[in-house]
Formats: sequence, structure tokens, C-alpha cells
Amino acid sequence: MLYEINEKIIELERKGKKIIKFHIGDPDQDTDPRIIDAALKAMKQGKTKYSSAMGEKDLRDALAEIHGVNADNIIITPGSKWAIFSIIFLTLEKGDNAIVPSPHWISYELILKKLGIRAKFLKTEIDSEWKIDVGKLESLIDEKTKLIILNNPNNPTSKVVNNNTLEEIVEIANNRGVTILSDETYSEISFLKTKCILDFDKNHILVNSFSKTFAMTGWRMGYAILNEELKNKMTKLNQITITNVPVFIQEAAIKALELKKEISRKIKEDYQKRAELACKILSKSKLKFSRPDAPFYVFPRCEEIDSEKFVFDLLEKGVAITPGTSFGDYRDCFRISLTRPDDEIKSGLEKLVEVIG
Amino acid sequence: MLYEINEKIIELERKGKKIIKFHIGDPDQDTDPRIIDAALKAMKQGKTKYSSAMGEKDLRDALAEIHGVNADNIIITPGSKWAIFSIIFLTLEKGDNAIVPSPHWISYELILKKLGIRAKFLKTEIDSEWKIDVGKLESLIDEKTKLIILNNPNNPTSKVVNNNTLEEIVEIANNRGVTILSDETYSEISFLKTKCILDFDKNHILVNSFSKTFAMTGWRMGYAILNEELKNKMTKLNQITITNVPVFIQEAAIKALELKKEISRKIKEDYQKRAELACKILSKSKLKFSRPDAPFYVFPRCEEIDSEKFVFDLLEKGVAITPGTSFGDYRDCFRISLTRPDDEIKSGLEKLVEVIG
Repeated sequence: MLYEINEKIIELERKGKKIIKFHIGDPDQDTDPRIIDAALKAMKQGKTKYSSAMGEKDLRDALAEIHGVNADNIIITPGSKWAIFSIIFLTLEKGDNAIVPSPHWISYELILKKLGIRAKFLKTEIDSEWKIDVGKLESLIDEKTKLIILNNPNNPTSKVVNNNTLEEIVEIANNRGVTILSDETYSEISFLKTKCILDFDKNHILVNSFSKTFAMTGWRMGYAILNEELKNKMTKLNQITITNVPVFIQEAAIKALELKKEISRKIKEDYQKRAELACKILSKSKLKFSRPDAPFYVFPRCEEIDSEKFVFDLLEKGVAITPGTSFGDYRDCFRISLTRPDDEIKSGLEKLVEVIG
Repeated sequence: MLYEINEKIIELERKGKKIIKFHIGDPDQDTDPRIIDAALKAMKQGKTKYSSAMGEKDLRDALAEIHGVNADNIIITPGSKWAIFSIIFLTLEKGDNAIVPSPHWISYELILKKLGIRAKFLKTEIDSEWKIDVGKLESLIDEKTKLIILNNPNNPTSKVVNNNTLEEIVEIANNRGVTILSDETYSEISFLKTKCILDFDKNHILVNSFSKTFAMTGWRMGYAILNEELKNKMTKLNQITITNVPVFIQEAAIKALELKKEISRKIKEDYQKRAELACKILSKSKLKFSRPDAPFYVFPRCEEIDSEKFVFDLLEKGVAITPGTSFGDYRDCFRISLTRPDDEIKSGLEKLVEVIG
């Protein structure tokens, strides 16, 4: 679907039409120049050679300190997505299944499908503020369930899982011998604080990314924290696939971590303002939506619409969004990504409200 | 084995011992500063965002022109290794097999093993200058053979496959419906010219890398040229794994291609001199070896040695090499990587000759 949307955008832009792009979760902010300088410095120092498939020790040490874990439990990956793919590739077998609360990031679904693993989606609803029903989650677990994939904060709803719910999920997972893979890509810039999965139990898996916290999407920098046995398996898989993340990119990541407080606060503030602006405008419409707890998205619902059709109607008016069907069984919802400057958010959402009525 | 060698090197260096490192195929030359500048320029232009999983059109166009193919048949990958892994992952199934002339780059063996594909090794011998016996190759093909992996020029022997042999292999592959995956990582800097697999038949697969041609090993830049159907499948796999190669790295690659003639000639000349120096020194020993047709390696044989033991004996004398067993069933051979400055090559190989007698 995203492919068709992109094709349509290209066609419209060719005709001279200006499109406000709310359909991709790629921040409009630039990577901080000090991070770029760190990459350049490393390149000039000759850090352009083969290196560790596990990741640079300095970077793993810095992350270990942040997360209060041992560097031996950390692996550096070219984006969090590669970490997620690797973990599923290495630990699940055909016939196994994974539970995924939905709406969900489409990559989980596509990765599981590609690897022949059944995804059991746990639908959440806007009427309960996208809360995970722990009882329902438990009822989905069977003897072939090996993984629960949490995305906290969630893409596309931008809701965080509250601590009580997290605690209950961890307890169920532990009782039933299921591993939790917690993708916390948006956690550092979340408006509402949420606890890390490792704060409950170090036996589960944390996956994180530099993409959103530091506006570094295209650098491909992520990491996973997990038991040493699985980390060693992932290192071996890296050796026969991606070899290593470029060292100069890892040096840029070290600089990013040094600047984390400053950069993440700024990004969080920017998106909090945008979220407020978006909520204010959307309130004037008949759309139902839950206020975002985190960047970057709003995921409204309108019972009357077929979002796959609505996306193209709205595109003709110059605004690109993503249909709810790209995140699971949510045909009457759509995702707005607030990764555009304030003036575009204002005019784009006003247009959307005008169209939807 | 490489792991144990690295551990031993660290231990010896800690004791203050200087080690001449002939055990890794990572050139000592730095990446050209103009390539680094191109990466920097792209970063400053904000080319730090998500981008195409297929690779940038400009880079694919430049490669298309070089290879006389259509850009639609080219995919950019984070290193050639990821291309090889992806192709095997997407086109072979458990129970299938692939033929690999040996001695061989260990990654082919490890990738096939990880994906549950049987490797049928076709042994070549130093006495016939590591020539591929085409009759033997044909006899290895059965109904489950899906791939022949050529490495031309070869790591570790640094021999090229001559055009007649290549032509015969292509004919056999075509007759038997087997695809050739030709890894031509060392071809641009080969002393002896060799033809590209696509010059024979565009239905086979070329895999190539920027690592050796441009001293860009740690940048992770490779590509594959193949039919559009498989390219589309690889693009989809990229979308759920590595997402994209950083655009600023692809911009650096475009600059590298502009400088290809100059840079590759210089690297070729450097290594030709080193190969001559190495042959001159090694001739004074009882070692048997075939003169390299290409960078970076010499792969000598000595019937009396167990190379796994010899490697550690030599390491104690300050010289690191790789045992032949890291490249297949070649216990009496070892690989010397000439990726060190001339003075180290001289002193390191003189020490080796002294030890071996």
C-alpha cells in the first residue's frame, strides 16, 4: 500500500502539486552537526576498516552504563530492524508463533511472515485507549508461542504501556516460558515515562534505535540487549551477513549518546508541541482519537471511512497519510506522522478536517 | 580458528610483542580523502534519512553504465556478503546444494551451512595451478544443485579463472539449469584481466564490492546484478532487514566510481609490487606456491606442515598468517595476506622463510 501511495505522490508532484507528507515516520529535523563531525573525525582517523561483528567496545560500554547492564550483553546492529529480524531468525522455528499487540508496526508482521512464523495479533481498541488486555494476551499463548513483541511506545498509536500492565505481561511471560522482545525505539523521547523491560526482568530482550532519539534514521544504528548466548549467535550471524556497522557510524553514535540529554529533550519538546497542535485541530472534527503519549503519530478513527480509499481522496487535496490497514485490521483508522514543520502540520491537518468534516 | 589467532595476537601484543599481521584481507591503504569528503558533503546536505531499499538511482545508474546493464537489474547492499546471503536465502531451499570450488572464502561455507544448504566442494590443486576441472565440476551437479559459486579472482589463491574455463562452466551451467553466482570482488584490481560472468550470459549473477577496489572495507558497500524478479525479492528483504545502505555512503561510492581508474590502478600497482617481492622471498624456501594473478594473497603449500600448528609457531616469532584449513581441506597450505607495507612484507616473509627452512 505504501508503494502505491509513494507512486501517487511522485505522479502528483510531477504535475506540480505540493504534497504535505504525513505518511512516513522520518523526522524532518537534521542530524546534529556535532554527530556528523564525530563521524568525519573517525573517517579521517582511518576508522574505515573491518571491525567487530559485535560492535565497538566503547559504544557497548557507553550503552551498558546507560542501561545498567554488562557490555557483554549488548550487540550493535545496522538499525533495530536487523536486531529484530536476527532474533526471530535465530530463536524461532517454523510452526512457532509470536504474539503481537495490534495495531502494530508492519515490519513485525512482514518479518514473521518471511520466516514462516505465525503471528497472533492481539487487537487493542481506541475505546479503551489502545490498552493491552492482559487476559486476552494470556489466552493467546499456546505451547508453540515463543515470543511476545511489545512496541512501547507504540507505532502507530503513540501510546505507552503503563507499568502495571507491563508488570502483568512480564509475570505471564515468565510463568509461561515466553520471551518478551520489547522494541523501545520511541522511549527516550516519550512524553510519558515508561519503564524499560529490563527494569522488570533482565531475561527478556530490549531492542532500541538511534533513529528517532537523534534524528538518525538513515544512519542505520540500533542495538539489542539480551543474554550472552543469543548475543554470541547474533554476532556469528553478523559475521556472515552485514560484517559490522561502519566504525565511523558507531563513533557518531558515541557522540550522540554524549549529547543525549540535550538532543532528546529538544526533539521531545518539538513533538509535544506538535502533538498539542494536532490534537487541537483534530478536536474540531468528528474524528475519534487518543492523545499521543509519545512521538510521532496520531492514529484517529472514523467509523464512516474506508481508510484505503480516504488516503487517495486526501492525497488529491495535497496531504499524504497512511491507512490503518498498514498496521493491522484497522480499516476505519489512519496514521498521521507529525514529522513535518509546524506550519505544514497546521495547514495539512486543517485540510484533513475540512475533508473529513 | 581466526578467533583463536586473534586472541593469541592480543595476548602477545599485551606482552609487548610486535606482530606483523598477514592474516586479514583488509588493505593497509586509507580510503581516498576525496571519497570521505563526498560522504561529508552528503551528510551536511541532510542525506541522513531513510531511503530506497534498492539503492540510490544515481549510484545504480553509474554502475549500470560501467557494466553495460540496466539500472533495474542492480541492487545496492551493505557489502557483497549481504548480497550473497540474500541470494542464497531467497533462492535455495533446504535439501538443495551449491557447488563451491575450493580453496574457498569461508563465508560461502558458513552462509550455506547456516541456511541448511549442502555445499559440494570441488577441490582444486596447487599442482595444476588451482585450475578448476570442468569435468569434475559437471559430475558434481545433480537435480538438487541450484548454484555454482565462483570467486574470480579467488580468495585465497589469487588465481583468475581463464576465459576458456569460464566459457565451459557457463555452458555446463546453462545446459543443466544451474545459476552461477560470480563473486568478482578482486576483479577490478586483478593483475591479469578476466572476463565478467555477465559478458558470457546475463542470466547469471554478478556480486561485487567496493571494499578492495577502493580500500573501503569498513564502509560496507557492495552490489549485485541479477534478474529483476530476484532484485525485487532482495529489495523486499532489505525492507525488513537492513532498510537501506546509508545514502551518504552511497554518495561516497559514486565519488569512488568517478575516481575508479586512478584509485584502482594505484592499488593494483602497489599489490603487484608486493606480490613480486613476496614471490622473490618465498622462492628462497622449500615452499611451493603459484604466482598470484591478483591481490591480495599468496597461498603456499608445504607437505611437511600442519598449518594449524604452524600458524601458532610462527605467531610466537611475530608473524600472523591464516591456516589452509580456514579455506577448506588444505591442512598443508596457509594464506599470506599482503595487506601490509613493503617493509613489513619483507621482514615478515624473511622470518617465515627462516622458520620453514
